[in-house]
Amino acid sequence: MNREELITAVKEQMPERRWLHTLGVMETSVTLAKRFGGDPVKADLAAILHDYCKYWPVQEQAKIIRENGLPQDLLDYDKELWHSHAGAYIAKEQFGIHDEEILDAIRYHTSGRVQMTLMDKIVCLADYMEPGRDFPGVDLIRELAERSLEKALVAGFDSTISFLIAKGKRIYPLTILTRNDLITQLNT
Amino acid sequence: MNREELITAVKEQMPERRWLHTLGVMETSVTLAKRFGGDPVKADLAAILHDYCKYWPVQEQAKIIRENGLPQDLLDYDKELWHSHAGAYIAKEQFGIHDEEILDAIRYHTSGRVQMTLMDKIVCLADYMEPGRDFPGVDLIRELAERSLEKALVAGFDSTISFLIAKGKRIYPLTILTRNDLITQLNT
Repeated sequence: MNREELITAVKEQMPERRWLHTLGVMETSVTLAKRFGGDPVKADLAAILHDYCKYWPVQEQAKIIRENGLPQDLLDYDKELWHSHAGAYIAKEQFGIHDEEILDAIRYHTSGRVQMTLMDKIVCLADYMEPGRDFPGVDLIRELAERSLEKALVAGFDSTISFLIAKGKRIYPLTILTRNDLITQLNT
Repeated sequence: MNREELITAVKEQMPERRWLHTLGVMETSVTLAKRFGGDPVKADLAAILHDYCKYWPVQEQAKIIRENGLPQDLLDYDKELWHSHAGAYIAKEQFGIHDEEILDAIRYHTSGRVQMTLMDKIVCLADYMEPGRDFPGVDLIRELAERSLEKALVAGFDSTISFLIAKGKRIYPLTILTRNDLITQLNT
């Protein structure tokens, strides 16, 4: 399946406004890849597929996690985390993508992980700051992203954690470990 | 050593203003114990000792943690966490307190832990809201504490996490697990 066919397949999975978000993540991922020395072709591909399962019924996402040995603890936390792991699974099984750099960037674009790769950072940050995003702090994230992937990502995770606190929701522990690890990277 | 002797020993370890804080935690712990069915005598004793090591040189606190099998991961995080575990160690070894309910309440008064006991909750919350405390959100914590230890503690940990985010500091993972666990307790 070539890039255009992949894009057609992705568009069918989501409402128009989410496709516009995906377009924004594609554009921003490529920009960040060029800025920080990542592979723009891989960044583009990961961005195309990153939200593939986002609008699937949550039970379908949960089924993929439950039946394919994906991290079961995800099911105890916010449903927003599920589509990333389900998406990486589909990218591999349905679209035959075996490049682990691309699969990981899809898999960890919501939670992050300890020792994020350059590609993980690019796609996760693009997801926070693509041009369609509008939330308190997004301008600071874009400003920091001019110079530092890590500083911008810390600001991104800060906004997620603050949002979850305001909503009284539980926080996925890996997100905290990711933020801690990024701060350690910045301080050493 | 009787209660008065213990108080004398504690006062010598800290500046006057911190002793006033300890007095506040003692008073508030007893109030909360009476309100929520805890043992006021134990709550008082845990409160007297909770900050025993707070003003010790941090290297002294670290030494106690390193040499006595206390959780080593504490040393990777904020120094503010150390005095609680060091304090529980001293309470046992120096003052011969063997009541695990009291020792745990001292040990976890800063980080919290998954499945906090009633005594853990009382002392930890008293530490957040004693009358001398003045920080954004403390009035909400006091208001919630009229009815729910768990809701007030979630608000307390929220203030700690928000403070660490504002300061760009790493967050001790157990604090997140504690907050998640309290929210689960409230929702079930």
